[in-house]
Amino acid sequence: MKVFILGGDGFCGWPTALYLSKQGHDITIVDNFSRRKIDIDLKVSSLTPISHMEERLLTWMKITGNTIKFSEIDIAKQYKKLLDLIVSEKPDSIVHFAEQSSAPFSMKNSKNKIYTIDNNLNTSNNLLAAIVESGLDIHVVHLGSMGVYGYGSSGMQIPEGYLTVKLKKENNEYMDKEIMYPPNPGSLYHMTKTQDALLFAFYNKNNNIRTTDLHQGVVWGTQTDETRLDEKLINKFSYDGDYGTVLNRFIMQAAIGHRLTVYGSGGQTRCFININDTVRCIEIALINPPGNKEKVKIFNQMTETHKIRDLAIMIDAKTGSGIDYIKNPRNEDAENDLHVKNECFLNLGLVPTKLNESLIDEITNVAKKYSYRCDKSKILPRSYWTSGNRP
Amino acid sequence: MKVFILGGDGFCGWPTALYLSKQGHDITIVDNFSRRKIDIDLKVSSLTPISHMEERLLTWMKITGNTIKFSEIDIAKQYKKLLDLIVSEKPDSIVHFAEQSSAPFSMKNSKNKIYTIDNNLNTSNNLLAAIVESGLDIHVVHLGSMGVYGYGSSGMQIPEGYLTVKLKKENNEYMDKEIMYPPNPGSLYHMTKTQDALLFAFYNKNNNIRTTDLHQGVVWGTQTDETRLDEKLINKFSYDGDYGTVLNRFIMQAAIGHRLTVYGSGGQTRCFININDTVRCIEIALINPPGNKEKVKIFNQMTETHKIRDLAIMIDAKTGSGIDYIKNPRNEDAENDLHVKNECFLNLGLVPTKLNESLIDEITNVAKKYSYRCDKSKILPRSYWTSGNRP
Repeated sequence: MKVFILGGDGFCGWPTALYLSKQGHDITIVDNFSRRKIDIDLKVSSLTPISHMEERLLTWMKITGNTIKFSEIDIAKQYKKLLDLIVSEKPDSIVHFAEQSSAPFSMKNSKNKIYTIDNNLNTSNNLLAAIVESGLDIHVVHLGSMGVYGYGSSGMQIPEGYLTVKLKKENNEYMDKEIMYPPNPGSLYHMTKTQDALLFAFYNKNNNIRTTDLHQGVVWGTQTDETRLDEKLINKFSYDGDYGTVLNRFIMQAAIGHRLTVYGSGGQTRCFININDTVRCIEIALINPPGNKEKVKIFNQMTETHKIRDLAIMIDAKTGSGIDYIKNPRNEDAENDLHVKNECFLNLGLVPTKLNESLIDEITNVAKKYSYRCDKSKILPRSYWTSGNRP
Repeated sequence: MKVFILGGDGFCGWPTALYLSKQGHDITIVDNFSRRKIDIDLKVSSLTPISHMEERLLTWMKITGNTIKFSEIDIAKQYKKLLDLIVSEKPDSIVHFAEQSSAPFSMKNSKNKIYTIDNNLNTSNNLLAAIVESGLDIHVVHLGSMGVYGYGSSGMQIPEGYLTVKLKKENNEYMDKEIMYPPNPGSLYHMTKTQDALLFAFYNKNNNIRTTDLHQGVVWGTQTDETRLDEKLINKFSYDGDYGTVLNRFIMQAAIGHRLTVYGSGGQTRCFININDTVRCIEIALINPPGNKEKVKIFNQMTETHKIRDLAIMIDAKTGSGIDYIKNPRNEDAENDLHVKNECFLNLGLVPTKLNESLIDEITNVAKKYSYRCDKSKILPRSYWTSGNRP
């Protein structure tokens, strides 16, 4: 299968590109290196020393004999370049990771709010408009977020995108109606995913663009079988307050002897998925596209839920790191339950990689190995949802 | 009350600015003249000869003694300039008309799709981010569209924004939940209004921005009591296939002896409002803002519904113009019912201006007076929702 990976230089995109290449798919990465540039602006670096794209691809070719192509395009700004690439390469599918992906970054200041909306929505719309203009039948697989649903499931299992509700008619009888689950994003980043969902639904309805939207939980882990093959293929590991995902942050804090920083009471329940499952889910989505004239497929890409404080307690018990409960920089409920359906992927063959000691040990070893690269001043949150959330 | 009118040079914005100035409010218009420039690109002109902003404002001052201020800002691109204006002027309210406002224009080609998403969403987000950064408590009144609801009310009256549905819980009991009415936009233009609604809900939840979103029907009419005061205050009258609204197009066609062009069967039911009611609704919304920590207020800004073919039959009966049923350029249901609630404005004192002969005569007279300015080659649709919608 011929597949474009938009955002293929990033934390999820890079291991996905390698995994799909390994499975024999013909891969082209499209990226503008925005994520590397954001790290420069934030004055942080990946804990792991990631290579530049040229070196990454050369190494991959040397080790596996597989060629991954690359095209540098700012999709939000360079529509014509994207269209030309689609028309000349005629991919079967396009995996769309090319969005600013941090909630704290999106809430830090006006500049970041503007960038997140501008980049994420123009990227999605340019991609969809280009597919329409190309006249090709291309399956779009988009990385959404579990954060589109909001975090309170209030006695209900969060479904996979769609929900059947009862509506009262004028004659006072009720009718069943299927709707998209009412969005309730917790940050501007998450909001762009809810706005993307409207774009996908419209282009699907109007132009029959076959689309799969994957609402992913918080990713943990760093290496996959493919990125582990060579130091030059190593995956990104963000540990800073903006881009570090919570479990990776805790493991890294423990590895360098820093107390774990829990926001608020830690009573927030979140969905999780290991990076090795992310790459498998993408392939499952690619080989099970929606049919013609089928509505947007929505899958919940997560394998388990945990309360943040339970994760901290687990890591603390294992490492004796200690826990600090700090003021929550986010504007969110202190405690929430979360019940989530994820049968779509399970029924299609996903065998979940659940949280386990050996994986945590492996990540801890990566964190320890590169701990000399850690700038401890970047660990605490530096983005606040409102002025009232400042310490 | 100190009020900014974003998009105050446009078809709705200009008469609103004059009406509010007449009522004694302190008005500042913000515009980048994008609508005039789009007409140049489309090679069409307002049927009525509209004056430039300087002349408009000078004339208004001469006639009424009232000063309306003006600031030229591209809100989607010039965040800092907007922020500075807000901080220095400290408006009580900001009326937001500053969006690309044509469904056919938004669907014409990739360039227009990209412009509509880029302009409309960045404008709304920049406005909201600027209000947050200013730290001021400013009420936002936004012009939405009835098109956010989709056009099928399927036995139900379309409510004013919010809907209470029954959701099945895990224990199989039902619970009531209030949701935003599930969006179902019919064009990318309408879609931006549904994406705006998510922005308003988020900034309201996170930053307590007081917001009123007005879902307006198809506007008809052209002059108001204020724009009628002097030829130099005359309002815009679009008759072209992109920006001409349906009833105005029919009246103009009849005035110049052109057969009325109905899309498809004309069985589409739409909501309507007269331009004189638009300006009154804006003032009603301004003087009835939501309270602190109140959710976004959503009003349906429409006064009646009609099937398109019934309007054509009415105009034809009056004028003998004849009717052509042409292939529908839009991707939409051929026939639909539409029942809509609009009690919010009625309860706050709106006295609707319903479709009536004398108003149609007045518009016909305007159309006849300026018929020498009409370019008949611009009347037919020139934008198609899909290649299958082409003639």
